[in-house]
Amino acid sequence: MPRPKSSASPSPRGLLISFEGSEGCGKSTQISLLSEWLEERKREVIVTREPGGTPLGEEIRHLLKHSSAGLDMTPETELLLFAASRAQLVRKVILPAVEAGKIVLCDRFLDSTTVYQGVGRKLATGPVQVINNFAVGELLPDLTFVIDIPAEEGFKRIKRRASDLPDRMESENIRFYQLIRDGYLELARSMPHRFVVIDGLRTREEVQNDIRAELEQRFAP
Amino acid sequence: MPRPKSSASPSPRGLLISFEGSEGCGKSTQISLLSEWLEERKREVIVTREPGGTPLGEEIRHLLKHSSAGLDMTPETELLLFAASRAQLVRKVILPAVEAGKIVLCDRFLDSTTVYQGVGRKLATGPVQVINNFAVGELLPDLTFVIDIPAEEGFKRIKRRASDLPDRMESENIRFYQLIRDGYLELARSMPHRFVVIDGLRTREEVQNDIRAELEQRFAP
Repeated sequence: MPRPKSSASPSPRGLLISFEGSEGCGKSTQISLLSEWLEERKREVIVTREPGGTPLGEEIRHLLKHSSAGLDMTPETELLLFAASRAQLVRKVILPAVEAGKIVLCDRFLDSTTVYQGVGRKLATGPVQVINNFAVGELLPDLTFVIDIPAEEGFKRIKRRASDLPDRMESENIRFYQLIRDGYLELARSMPHRFVVIDGLRTREEVQNDIRAELEQRFAP
Repeated sequence: MPRPKSSASPSPRGLLISFEGSEGCGKSTQISLLSEWLEERKREVIVTREPGGTPLGEEIRHLLKHSSAGLDMTPETELLLFAASRAQLVRKVILPAVEAGKIVLCDRFLDSTTVYQGVGRKLATGPVQVINNFAVGELLPDLTFVIDIPAEEGFKRIKRRASDLPDRMESENIRFYQLIRDGYLELARSMPHRFVVIDGLRTREEVQNDIRAELEQRFAP
């Protein structure tokens, strides 16, 4: 990860923290709680969402999630659109923020592509990795939390969100949820230094305490 | 290139022919003339343009060429959007047409990405090739015509097209045209079996005659 470049006074170290997990795992809630805590500590925090987070990225998000033109999208097209949105987000938002000493909390980042498009849609691992690295320009998260819940639980929670519009991702079936969960756990096992798996089946406060303790121990933010 | 799968009666062989060259080289005119000739010979012809050619691809085209959100697009984002449009076009239009024995004429295909984004925007060759191959799913053109004109001529022709709206690509300067021309010639030299370079500084009839002669000799379409 890039460090802040030369500056007159030492600024706090910027950080890039991503949150991953299947739909319904509680990422957004946890990011929101963590953001409050970090701001109480006088850190500048930026929260990004994927796809989206830039004017162009939000247009790509629309194509991916709500456009009728996207209904017969091929898995390859889907992956490339996610990567396009991320390439813009990294260079226009995340990298400048981290270089300025801010803490960036990403609601999904490149691991979502590895798991949803690679594992979920069964695209070949080699090209998916190359495209992921190309999109992020080698900028990997300092730390990635996987909030882990059983497939059935994620599916149940999503169905309960009555006010949400269904989109293509969330209307996938439970077998797909299982594939995604396994994908994340496998990825976390393969990169234990970057990943921390958090049990998401407890209260939001318990989950948040684990996240804060991990950050405290690693970075004392 | 895939051949038509099992069919009751032998159908004519499908073909994928792409046309490349810098802006103003005359690709569209030549494709239109060639299409007429092939149809006189009772071949079914499909003409595609990039980016675009599918409902989703046309939305991506809008993002790339006319959207205000696209104004500060990074080169990586641009490349990934072109690839996304192409991935959709290949699987929804080109591949089914070729497999049905049709002749597909592409106004730009993957070589445009190699040259415009790779050479022109100086993106690393390795990832560009991987992304290109991922987008087309290994479907390469049977033949690629590069219609070659000097950089100054291309630039002059484009400036003359007063009724065209300027877009980001066409407003690039002449040095960029030179880079693109050199990129195409280098690519053609590296793959002499797939590429034919046509001198585009002659009358449209002379250029078209060369194209037809080449096709006649190779495929007797």
